Amino acid sequence: MRIAIIGLGLIGGSVARALAGAGGASALGPDRPSIAAWNRRPDGPRAALAEGVIDAAPAALEEALEGASLVILGASPLACLELLDRLAGPLRAHVGPDATITDTASTKGAIVTRADELGLRFVGGHPMAGRETSGYGASTPDLFVERPWIVCRGRHAADADVERVDALATACGALPVRMDPAAHDKATAAISHMPLVLSAALVESVVGGPAWPDASRLAAGGWRDMSRLARGDAAMAAGIAATNRQALVAALTVVEHHLGEWIADLQEADAAGLEERFRAARASLEGR
Amino acid sequence: MRIAIIGLGLIGGSVARALAGAGGASALGPDRPSIAAWNRRPDGPRAALAEGVIDAAPAALEEALEGASLVILGASPLACLELLDRLAGPLRAHVGPDATITDTASTKGAIVTRADELGLRFVGGHPMAGRETSGYGASTPDLFVERPWIVCRGRHAADADVERVDALATACGALPVRMDPAAHDKATAAISHMPLVLSAALVESVVGGPAWPDASRLAAGGWRDMSRLARGDAAMAAGIAATNRQALVAALTVVEHHLGEWIADLQEADAAGLEERFRAARASLEGR
Repeated sequence: MRIAIIGLGLIGGSVARALAGAGGASALGPDRPSIAAWNRRPDGPRAALAEGVIDAAPAALEEALEGASLVILGASPLACLELLDRLAGPLRAHVGPDATITDTASTKGAIVTRADELGLRFVGGHPMAGRETSGYGASTPDLFVERPWIVCRGRHAADADVERVDALATACGALPVRMDPAAHDKATAAISHMPLVLSAALVESVVGGPAWPDASRLAAGGWRDMSRLARGDAAMAAGIAATNRQALVAALTVVEHHLGEWIADLQEADAAGLEERFRAARASLEGR
Repeated sequence: MRIAIIGLGLIGGSVARALAGAGGASALGPDRPSIAAWNRRPDGPRAALAEGVIDAAPAALEEALEGASLVILGASPLACLELLDRLAGPLRAHVGPDATITDTASTKGAIVTRADELGLRFVGGHPMAGRETSGYGASTPDLFVERPWIVCRGRHAADADVERVDALATACGALPVRMDPAAHDKATAAISHMPLVLSAALVESVVGGPAWPDASRLAAGGWRDMSRLARGDAAMAAGIAATNRQALVAALTVVEHHLGEWIADLQEADAAGLEERFRAARASLEGR
């Protein structure tokens, strides 16, 4: 079996390391797959080849695709949309007729829809794993161990394509979870993408404000926790936001409503009322 | 020198441990101070006495105050307000005429104002340190090391009172920082109290919502960071909120404004515009 990884950063690199580390048999088949990887900047694939993590690091994307039965896009949401256009256009001749195309990006609706419109045999994927660092140098073979790996079937995918992506997730140590792209995007908006925007809005509202000269000297763990997401990669954040606008706007509107209620309660409620509200929020999280 | 610690939980207990650990001379004087501690539930003082951390654990608050030249209130903001009333009322006869009263609570405006109105020789204090656990059992002698310890002079405090509280902070390994109570409350609203309410509003808006059954299975590091403050003690959160309403409402109103702008941008801006906004938020934090 041949696998092409297009985009060998933190996620693509960790997939390659997990598959290489598995040695021989895995959920993908009896033999260790042969991996060709391509990246816009070639240093990652070169390092991976030198380390024996991959088997080929061709200069041309076309060459990496040749003979692959599984094409993994290890790219950001916006880069995935662009790659899908190219795979259905100028690169089409280099993709085998039975090849399964999958991705690892953080949003699924826009990407699966685009692949469906282009007629590609596509199964969306989203391993729920990450680190604060990025790039091939940050990749690690155990990044996906015991983590959910969302699998979203595209319209033109056969059962065999979905099973192949399930097997990829399993071979990486992850737990494949089938989900509808819209349900995925709403769920990740709630616990990941909307908190990211909230963190950015918090930073915007505090840093540079009149209290900041004093506040910045006093900032401790709470501030670090709440501003951490805003410290992440801006291009990645924008790609996520731009491809999950609807769910994000809906989720932010609900937060805005609750914030308005807090502002009212802070002007009207007594300490017991405020305590009851904090207690209810805490209790709802119990065990999570 | 005799010190009374009223409220021997995480903060009061850590103060006692820091002073006991210093051994002999410290910023407070040439000899190790004698510490009497009282707590509503007596198990903390009993344990501290058995461990040799304090010198007396009287059953009556009055007794702990006798002969103390420094009275430290290791209590929540609302409990401090109540203690100040008692120190100016029924407990007055037990507080020496030269005794300095200080506290360690998270808000300062309401507490310093109350002490001023009551005519007490009060200097507000706020060591910027904490842990996720609470109670005497969680206390540790190095909790305050290298952390800012805000010192807010009350109207009836003499220079000697302020110097005594500075010395307390220094003896605990902290860095005393003089600040106006209103400036303190605005600064801590910005980087601590408002993020706490934001975390609670986030949890309210997500947990139990329509996406939660899927989302709760996918929650990862970002969700844990952003919901951590909402997992804290509800009574403490309410006490903070109830004694810092004005600064909190002002800070939340600014966040609400920025959230509204994000909702608009997510409906109108292109990916480049969104990226620019994330990039600016990130850049404003650089080095913080």
